[in-house]
Amino acid sequence: SNGTFGERLEEIILKYKIPMVKPDFEWAEYPDVNIIEEKLSNNPDVKVVAMVFHETSTGMINPVYEVGQLCKKYGKLFFVDCVSAAGGENIDVVRNNIDVATGVGGKCVGAFPGSAYICAKESLLESIKEEDCKNVYLNLYKHYHYAKNIRQTPNTPNLTLFWALNAALTNIINKGLDKQIETYKERAKILRNGIKELGLRVLLDEKYMSNSVTSVFLPDRIKVDDFLAEMEKDGYVLYAGKGKYYEQNMFQVANMGNIKIEECYELLKIIDKNIKKLQPNNCN
Amino acid sequence: SNGTFGERLEEIILKYKIPMVKPDFEWAEYPDVNIIEEKLSNNPDVKVVAMVFHETSTGMINPVYEVGQLCKKYGKLFFVDCVSAAGGENIDVVRNNIDVATGVGGKCVGAFPGSAYICAKESLLESIKEEDCKNVYLNLYKHYHYAKNIRQTPNTPNLTLFWALNAALTNIINKGLDKQIETYKERAKILRNGIKELGLRVLLDEKYMSNSVTSVFLPDRIKVDDFLAEMEKDGYVLYAGKGKYYEQNMFQVANMGNIKIEECYELLKIIDKNIKKLQPNNCN
Repeated sequence: SNGTFGERLEEIILKYKIPMVKPDFEWAEYPDVNIIEEKLSNNPDVKVVAMVFHETSTGMINPVYEVGQLCKKYGKLFFVDCVSAAGGENIDVVRNNIDVATGVGGKCVGAFPGSAYICAKESLLESIKEEDCKNVYLNLYKHYHYAKNIRQTPNTPNLTLFWALNAALTNIINKGLDKQIETYKERAKILRNGIKELGLRVLLDEKYMSNSVTSVFLPDRIKVDDFLAEMEKDGYVLYAGKGKYYEQNMFQVANMGNIKIEECYELLKIIDKNIKKLQPNNCN
Repeated sequence: SNGTFGERLEEIILKYKIPMVKPDFEWAEYPDVNIIEEKLSNNPDVKVVAMVFHETSTGMINPVYEVGQLCKKYGKLFFVDCVSAAGGENIDVVRNNIDVATGVGGKCVGAFPGSAYICAKESLLESIKEEDCKNVYLNLYKHYHYAKNIRQTPNTPNLTLFWALNAALTNIINKGLDKQIETYKERAKILRNGIKELGLRVLLDEKYMSNSVTSVFLPDRIKVDDFLAEMEKDGYVLYAGKGKYYEQNMFQVANMGNIKIEECYELLKIIDKNIKKLQPNNCN
């Protein structure tokens, strides 16, 4: 796992006592596909490969295409957590050989948190047995067969959030997914250029960055909690880095949802203001 | 189990492979507390007793007080599914000796489906261990400790539905829970009297009925699906009975949410109209 959400997948696998092999990567380390291939060729019993498309905790896009090719070569099912990628990245389940992709209404789709969906190969859905499912409510067998046979959910759904999800997806379809992704790229670029102009260091090499999250280090003497508190006073909610990045005063800027170009420039101005405010011996 | 939601509890227990003993009751049968006591005295290994407060599938209020007293006598934890009771019945976790009560934002509380909560004894919450929890997201250990320590949920919550839940609960507090329950009782009484005046038979004896759901049989010759279709054309969504009650052309009327007295009378009129429409040899 190279971040929180990879670790989350690991936590789920361990909680359900499913045997697991995993390559060891550091947080924010770009996964070495050769190491993954070695694991696959040495472990013929492995049935499913699980990975995160966009590791939100660092803002990294993982090598999904390459791992998808390995899954094809070694005959593994490929599960990809696309939660923070859906609506902001070009996922393409066919090109990437993804068997199961998960997504939510919040994040880059622009609806509300609380709705979730999966996109899976029909042959896989047909092969699931009720006894394979580990829960009564979050039960893919039931959800699939109810949807297929009576176009219903097995239990009362959170209908109001489905409406919001439907509206957000309709907006994306009307705009065009390519255009939507382009907008995300453009906003991220403005933010990243601005952050670099402020003299701040970003966590990742540009080529690994997602279109919606940027991880930034504050100057050493500014505590991230103080900075976030100042930003919040001005109406901006940023997230602190997780784990060791919190110690290193990292913060994260997300450009998720319907954000205007002017708002990106405004955010940069406020970041600059608050850094200057908190930097007592500012020599710039 | 004397209905669908008792069976749901059973399904959850079996899915998690938790050993279970259960008294056998028919659907809509009022549970014999002596049989429950016999099970408890014969099975000292039982740790938890689980039951449904309001069995929505029939509209029955189960003998929660009596079973609560048994739990006290035999030293069992008492779990009660209060999903369709919360906001419509007088639950009183102290009087009923309930250790864990579950509820939702929808149903009688009058918010939206998709939010859920539990009310549990603090000593019980303190005793839960992470390894006791069977899921990563629906994990009571995490929810409790996050709430207690940082007043947050462990993962992104469906915030919009929390707002609706908070608004609905505030409405109930402002009105007074007793007054709210009284309103439910009154609406149910109007519907039940009207249904009997239409010559329709109800499933349960009055003394077992909840304040919010009434189960009614149609005359033999009217198929419940045809009736529900006619009602829907007039803008009323009623539910068909489940299991064997579906075969017997049972339907269910719920008076959940902010329903006006006039609306109860209007519904009765429409039920009457559609029964007459579907009854070809009506001799009344």
